Amino acid sequence: MTTLKNLLNPRSVAVIGASEDQTKFGGRLYKTLLQHQYAGEVYPINPARESLFGLKTFPSIDATPQAPDMVVMALPRDKVKESITACAARGAKAGIIITSKFSDEGAQGLALEREVVAAAQAHGMRLIGPNCLGLISPTNKLVLCSSPALNVPSLIEAPIGFISQSGALMGTLFDRSYGMGIGFSHCVSVGNQADLELCDFIEFLIEDERTQVITSYVEGIKSPERFVDLARRARAAGKPWLMVKAGASDDGRRAAYSHTASLAGDFAALKAICARENVIMMDDPLNMLSLARAMVRYPNRRVRDVAILTTSGGGGAISADQLSSSGIGLARFHDATRAALAEHYSEGQASNPVDIGGRKSDATPKLGMLTSEIALADAATDLALMVLTTAPDVPAFTRQLADGAERPAAGGKPTLYVMLPGRVAEPARQMLVERGLPYVDTLAEGTAILRAWKSWSLYEAPDAPQRPAGMAPLQAPGEGLFGEAASKAWLASAGIPVNQERLVKSAAEAVAAADDVGYPMVLKIVSPDIAHKSDVGGVVLNIADAQELRARVETMQARVSREAPQARIEGYSLQKQESGELELLVGARRDPQFGAQVVVGAGGVLVELLEDVAVMPAPIDAASARRAVQALKIAPLLGAYRGRGALDLDAVVDAVVRLSWLAHDLEGSQERGGATDFEIEINPLKVRLAGQGVVAVDARARLGNA
Amino acid sequence: MTTLKNLLNPRSVAVIGASEDQTKFGGRLYKTLLQHQYAGEVYPINPARESLFGLKTFPSIDATPQAPDMVVMALPRDKVKESITACAARGAKAGIIITSKFSDEGAQGLALEREVVAAAQAHGMRLIGPNCLGLISPTNKLVLCSSPALNVPSLIEAPIGFISQSGALMGTLFDRSYGMGIGFSHCVSVGNQADLELCDFIEFLIEDERTQVITSYVEGIKSPERFVDLARRARAAGKPWLMVKAGASDDGRRAAYSHTASLAGDFAALKAICARENVIMMDDPLNMLSLARAMVRYPNRRVRDVAILTTSGGGGAISADQLSSSGIGLARFHDATRAALAEHYSEGQASNPVDIGGRKSDATPKLGMLTSEIALADAATDLALMVLTTAPDVPAFTRQLADGAERPAAGGKPTLYVMLPGRVAEPARQMLVERGLPYVDTLAEGTAILRAWKSWSLYEAPDAPQRPAGMAPLQAPGEGLFGEAASKAWLASAGIPVNQERLVKSAAEAVAAADDVGYPMVLKIVSPDIAHKSDVGGVVLNIADAQELRARVETMQARVSREAPQARIEGYSLQKQESGELELLVGARRDPQFGAQVVVGAGGVLVELLEDVAVMPAPIDAASARRAVQALKIAPLLGAYRGRGALDLDAVVDAVVRLSWLAHDLEGSQERGGATDFEIEINPLKVRLAGQGVVAVDARARLGNA
Repeated sequence: MTTLKNLLNPRSVAVIGASEDQTKFGGRLYKTLLQHQYAGEVYPINPARESLFGLKTFPSIDATPQAPDMVVMALPRDKVKESITACAARGAKAGIIITSKFSDEGAQGLALEREVVAAAQAHGMRLIGPNCLGLISPTNKLVLCSSPALNVPSLIEAPIGFISQSGALMGTLFDRSYGMGIGFSHCVSVGNQADLELCDFIEFLIEDERTQVITSYVEGIKSPERFVDLARRARAAGKPWLMVKAGASDDGRRAAYSHTASLAGDFAALKAICARENVIMMDDPLNMLSLARAMVRYPNRRVRDVAILTTSGGGGAISADQLSSSGIGLARFHDATRAALAEHYSEGQASNPVDIGGRKSDATPKLGMLTSEIALADAATDLALMVLTTAPDVPAFTRQLADGAERPAAGGKPTLYVMLPGRVAEPARQMLVERGLPYVDTLAEGTAILRAWKSWSLYEAPDAPQRPAGMAPLQAPGEGLFGEAASKAWLASAGIPVNQERLVKSAAEAVAAADDVGYPMVLKIVSPDIAHKSDVGGVVLNIADAQELRARVETMQARVSREAPQARIEGYSLQKQESGELELLVGARRDPQFGAQVVVGAGGVLVELLEDVAVMPAPIDAASARRAVQALKIAPLLGAYRGRGALDLDAVVDAVVRLSWLAHDLEGSQERGGATDFEIEINPLKVRLAGQGVVAVDARARLGNA
Repeated sequence: MTTLKNLLNPRSVAVIGASEDQTKFGGRLYKTLLQHQYAGEVYPINPARESLFGLKTFPSIDATPQAPDMVVMALPRDKVKESITACAARGAKAGIIITSKFSDEGAQGLALEREVVAAAQAHGMRLIGPNCLGLISPTNKLVLCSSPALNVPSLIEAPIGFISQSGALMGTLFDRSYGMGIGFSHCVSVGNQADLELCDFIEFLIEDERTQVITSYVEGIKSPERFVDLARRARAAGKPWLMVKAGASDDGRRAAYSHTASLAGDFAALKAICARENVIMMDDPLNMLSLARAMVRYPNRRVRDVAILTTSGGGGAISADQLSSSGIGLARFHDATRAALAEHYSEGQASNPVDIGGRKSDATPKLGMLTSEIALADAATDLALMVLTTAPDVPAFTRQLADGAERPAAGGKPTLYVMLPGRVAEPARQMLVERGLPYVDTLAEGTAILRAWKSWSLYEAPDAPQRPAGMAPLQAPGEGLFGEAASKAWLASAGIPVNQERLVKSAAEAVAAADDVGYPMVLKIVSPDIAHKSDVGGVVLNIADAQELRARVETMQARVSREAPQARIEGYSLQKQESGELELLVGARRDPQFGAQVVVGAGGVLVELLEDVAVMPAPIDAASARRAVQALKIAPLLGAYRGRGALDLDAVVDAVVRLSWLAHDLEGSQERGGATDFEIEINPLKVRLAGQGVVAVDARARLGNA
């Protein structure tokens, strides 16, 4: 079988509809292809011409001396199927269809798209697109893309691969990154992904020896399991995978939907998967490419704390502000570093950020080089951020900084240049490009890049999840909505502690049963029709004695029948009022793409206020669950706090792990034809002091598409 | 007396140390001055030359035909005083001292700086600097600045004033903004502000009829009261004032400190003042200038909801994501707008964001113009964000969008262009500059600008604060640390409800007094040495009866003497356990620069977790206090929530207003020699259901520098 490696490194290309007319797509594409000196054979197909730009043309695909490895076309939609059929029959291995209005424009287009794919598949031909911008492979000097961005003197080759679900963005980013001296191995616009899809191209880049960093613009994932597998393979291959994903917000999702009819999926679930697999998500595609350039220049370098070297105290101050608010630390220089700087800088200036303006003397030769070397030599420094402002000597000074970073004492550590000047810094930018040194033009860009680089650097691969000892795989107890008692019974069978309760039908029954439970007591309404009990006055805490209990049952009866008259009341649940120092939410759900997920976060009323939750793929290993809990905003409350001891973190982690296995089992039963969807929520899980455990005091579940 | 208007619009300038040598500061400055065709008289001062670049020189300041309005110098530090003395004696009205190493380099430099100022003041001469980059006044074609940024063919004049506390940043921003076609009326680098300071120049810009928008880079405020007064005058003059302030983070503050020895002050206090006066704080100085350009182009336009028009669905998706996460709304188009778009766009595409790629036909003439006009004509649209990607027709298409925005139906509403392409969009950028239309190169920049513009737009001027009826001005009860009982008594005298308590010395006394208070009860330790009672087990809630009370007092006694053995125990406070649905913190403090401030936010354990507080200058009017409370993250908890009614927001606002007047009174007594500093904290203030009020159940205060 033909591998993608062969498909994307074709030895011959046929251009259907080639022309010299630059107002036509086929003319622009053909001219661009010739311009970049592709080394393979080019077969222009045009029945009306003998030759085009000096190259012999062929009247049809059947007339070419051999079957082309690749064909490219931007024919009117109605002619695509016929042409693909002919190319496939001729033995073409791959085709790029630029033409749009297929599945991107409704049911009729989708049907035609499927016919086109079937026509290709009948002869084993693979397709890119339709509705795509094509392919740019600087490593092969192969351009099958008509974007005006390609109208450049020569392509820049670099080990960065880029796969884009938006054609316009691919052209735009190529254009913009070209201006910054950023090159590529291969760029592919995937279009409608009728045949070959995002994951195919990611796999190609993982295997491509001329690609070191993978970048991607993603609107939706078609093959979630393969996506996860590829993330692991990219990691194993030592190739960072960076991604910009549209659809983080509701508004963004709507826009993505109306664009290529791809499902944006659940952003939180994808984020959880990416966090687990160290696929780095970024907001801005240009920053993604800038980070890729930096990672290519400094492979496998970890970045946490930064030294700022600046030509302006003001620039240093703003830089420090922006880094700090993004969680990036300023390296705390060691005494030896301060002493070394103090030889050249005024008192109080020999620290991080280093303001070159604080120099003792204008006459010190190569102060920039010395400073750069000293700052990078400090073990606390992971990277030097060079913040350049407009000054008479920007180019020379930038060169000095770069020279210093290459001195042996600097240890080859990464640098990133923030070139704030405009025109004045052009020669300096040129020098940086020539030396392959990463730069950006604004502090915001520098900060975004460092934040993503730090996140990638701090990744810890998860352990293999271990099912808790003695926890048997669970079966879903049928489908439907499950109330508190049923949900808790089921959670208890998974080994999650729940509080004891008694179900009663009336005030009299309640008083009679109360001694089995004990005061202070909690009273809750039991109804399959009431999901949010407290919204209708269906929860009363801290009931002190029989007299109060009787009164509360009666009041609750009256209020619920007033506020939820349609609800079937099954009775009242009496529960021991459980103590706890903190309330958490622990939940699980099935993501339609990535399957079982477990969630932990602030519980009680804080859920909606804080949105302080961690989402993790299920099942989860204990160490990862612990890290997720400890990264919550409310994590400080789990430690010793205001006079009380630390809380039972182990028990929290155990509950999260058990619920994650429960979710995993449900997911498995779904695969065996069981529940097709589910959500389970414990809220609150009360957390006690260390050694005293946790207890679920309320829960509910939905299994199946109820 | 000479006004700043005359000083900054001089009719003649003397350049001390003028030269033709471009390696020297005086040479570069002199050449730059001549190059920009300043219309006033230029007197080059150089005893060694007859003429310089064809202009007659003078051997000394005394030899000029008349006293110059302005002198500029970058002499070695030791020669500055002598030269200023001579210039002042000659009658020069103003001087710019570029030379550094004065107060920016310690006590000796400061002493010399003071001597220089005294020498000037002896003859009424005013000074800019030292340690500054000078002055750039495109309105006067006057450049007294040697930065290579000024080496441009001609200056761009625009009604934007810029005052910078960093010289390097001024040069950098001039350079960068020049490249984007952004001009200025005046730019001033204030340096060490030995004489004229930031506020002087802001005042000048407020009065300058050629300035419409004021921009500033600020490291510290020297005259807080004047700053506030100027903010009001700028507002009254209809001139937006934008500001980037270094020192938001600790790291930033440290860098600012080491830069020009100016105090960064308390960022939160400054932010509160700026919020009250609608001075718009931004993170990035280049974005500040881009917003200024937009505000100059679209004066007094309010921006809240945005229509996105884009050449790429991907660009639209990312734009919508970024706007959404910055709190900027996408305009919800009316049906008529959708219908108008549906004539030109495919089904499902006739909505916001509008992806031009979703057009029905490539043949529609002037689709960009039509789309721009339709989207801006919608009453829901405040601004159109045009997100351009690389395409064959970027320049023509951008022009169409701009044409549509100028059609009458578009109502002259603002537009902002995000030019994502690189080189391909250069002609489009040029066209935008020529038409005075604001553009940026990245989405992040566009988002930051819209966020700041929206904040400026939503400003509501505060009412005059009204002292609550019957609340007499309060005197500080001496200096020192005040415990709970004393603090609450004092708050009660300001009309803030506090809970009742009894002080007892022993368990026996507690039990005897308990009936006066009533169960359930709270027990607290009373000690002048314990600020955080709960940290040492000094608070017990929910005591049910006499038996428990006795046991609790004894346990507390033992634990406190173990954990805080040095603390003087004055006894135990018995307090009725007050009910409340929510706990807030309400506090007040004196900012060293801006005086009395009041704070309100999430109380109890949430304080440190959420950092959900609003800081306001005191006294505050009720409407502003209400808006601040309603903008808290926890504000939803003040409304009806999960089955309970709304809480007593009026009572919260009243407590905040009363505390703000109390703080104001303390600030007043400070002016009369009373407490020099103070902080007061109520935590928690328990908030009950509407109509049931609030109650302070714990409080403490520090008055004076205790």
